[in-house]
Amino acid sequence: MRLSLLSLLLLSSCLSTSSTSLSGNGDPLPSWADGGLKETIVDFVEGATDPESVHFVPPEERIAVFDNDGTLICEKPVYSQLAFMIDRAMGYVEDDPTLGDQEPYRSLMDGTFGRTNDIDAFIELAMKTHTGMLDEEFVAIAEAWLASARHPELGRPYTELAYAPMLELVSFLQEEDFQVWICTGGGLDFVRCYAKDVYGIGPENVIGSSTQKAYREIDGRGEFMRLAELVNPLNDGPAKPVNINRYIGRSPIIAVGNSDGDLEMLQYVAQRHARTLTLLLHHDDGEREFAYDAGIERALIVAAEGEIEVISMSRDFGTVFAPAP
Amino acid sequence: MRLSLLSLLLLSSCLSTSSTSLSGNGDPLPSWADGGLKETIVDFVEGATDPESVHFVPPEERIAVFDNDGTLICEKPVYSQLAFMIDRAMGYVEDDPTLGDQEPYRSLMDGTFGRTNDIDAFIELAMKTHTGMLDEEFVAIAEAWLASARHPELGRPYTELAYAPMLELVSFLQEEDFQVWICTGGGLDFVRCYAKDVYGIGPENVIGSSTQKAYREIDGRGEFMRLAELVNPLNDGPAKPVNINRYIGRSPIIAVGNSDGDLEMLQYVAQRHARTLTLLLHHDDGEREFAYDAGIERALIVAAEGEIEVISMSRDFGTVFAPAP
Repeated sequence: MRLSLLSLLLLSSCLSTSSTSLSGNGDPLPSWADGGLKETIVDFVEGATDPESVHFVPPEERIAVFDNDGTLICEKPVYSQLAFMIDRAMGYVEDDPTLGDQEPYRSLMDGTFGRTNDIDAFIELAMKTHTGMLDEEFVAIAEAWLASARHPELGRPYTELAYAPMLELVSFLQEEDFQVWICTGGGLDFVRCYAKDVYGIGPENVIGSSTQKAYREIDGRGEFMRLAELVNPLNDGPAKPVNINRYIGRSPIIAVGNSDGDLEMLQYVAQRHARTLTLLLHHDDGEREFAYDAGIERALIVAAEGEIEVISMSRDFGTVFAPAP
Repeated sequence: MRLSLLSLLLLSSCLSTSSTSLSGNGDPLPSWADGGLKETIVDFVEGATDPESVHFVPPEERIAVFDNDGTLICEKPVYSQLAFMIDRAMGYVEDDPTLGDQEPYRSLMDGTFGRTNDIDAFIELAMKTHTGMLDEEFVAIAEAWLASARHPELGRPYTELAYAPMLELVSFLQEEDFQVWICTGGGLDFVRCYAKDVYGIGPENVIGSSTQKAYREIDGRGEFMRLAELVNPLNDGPAKPVNINRYIGRSPIIAVGNSDGDLEMLQYVAQRHARTLTLLLHHDDGEREFAYDAGIERALIVAAEGEIEVISMSRDFGTVFAPAP
């Protein structure tokens, strides 16, 4: 299913884009509405890739970073990895009902988790559901969940809920020799489980939150044991530019986010080159998706000052989700 | 100077390699001696890249990892980053002679550092010389040092002392659509200062030891302050496979090292696919370079069991260093 979604979009992108010129008949971004940010994006990419342009950027410096949940893919009412954590935790309680008296299970069961719990409780839940097993075991668990879970309101696999305009933008940039990276607060290994199939972004281009791992020889084979300890703070806020520096070592010229947790990343990118494209997706379309301002307040204020362009989902997304395959 | 070295080797590689076939007239590895491992390497790459071969590997899975000091570049009598640390530390003592009574300066001055000191003293020296400044300041310091420092015995810039056969191998693999990564115990940012110019390996393909950084707004611009704390253990031994998993997220099919610190990386790579190429460079050429077995004992024993191929510098390197530009 996930492969089909990607294939469909890559195909539509191939069919609609001239391979040599953006100014031909092809439209590289058919799911973007005309008259809004689409032209800004195409102009930016044309300038960066045209050797005759004063804005030309050599291929090795064409780097774009995208936040994941809420930027590339739907995150409401709950993003896929949190749904995964809750499902796994509920499974633990099913196996051992006495856990229901303990945190974080109690607040998960009475629906107050996320309201009454703090970041430490969140991390505790993440550790309980993501660690204590071998790496390959975790990947199998996550892949099985991703294949079977359904979005509670839209009824589709979470991995089908990537935004069609964003998938086109990723493909468009890759065709124009951009390195496209994900820089997510989500878990590195969880996002890698679907990033290649859904977005066409390989595991080596995913930056995320991650846990320590111990390399141990088990039955003569080296294995990674997942340990209940974060490598670093969660990859959010100021940690995003720090990890872009650590993993990429060059400043991107394009950054796309959707929340205050992406603000430092967007500002960092905007400051580092004379010409950059920094985009903030505003979820203002309650008809076709979910409308919300919580968690984007600071970023919207900064964007209003002109450094960052706001993608209005209601205005700029001609299509929100690709049709089910 | 460094650019010229790379250009020279890329040029020689381009001139000597047929662009479509390895079996044409071109020799992709002219600095490797015939009759030894050269044929093994070429056979491996031919199998991995020939769509008709049972050993074909799709481009996205063609990943090669190289250790740096002692594998790609000369590390004796002292590797460049340690020389950099010592030079900087001596500069501190020049500025403030009272430091000479304190460790790690005292043992540096009396020549016992590295013999009497332990890993903690080494890390302390690394922190004193690599942190406490902005990232851009550190890069400027390291680049200035790399431009002016000379190898104490060979009299050439350290960055000219990459091995010609290894530079050819890196270029050859890149031409054959391999992602070539460095996985070094050395400092991430130090190695990145020359990896692109010397090896043609961009900063996003360097994995190394690194320090924490704080993202801070200074005069309205986000800056990275380098903090005196390692992100993780040094990228050595079992940390190498852990970081390959973290940064790349796929198992390489080629790994090249030269010491016991590379053993887990080599074993990990050898175990993960049916057909892999794992190479251990043995410095057995005291005539043309430096002959030494210290620090490679364990790896040589494992190699003798057949899992890892030993590159004998005296037998396999037709040329050791490229001529000065």
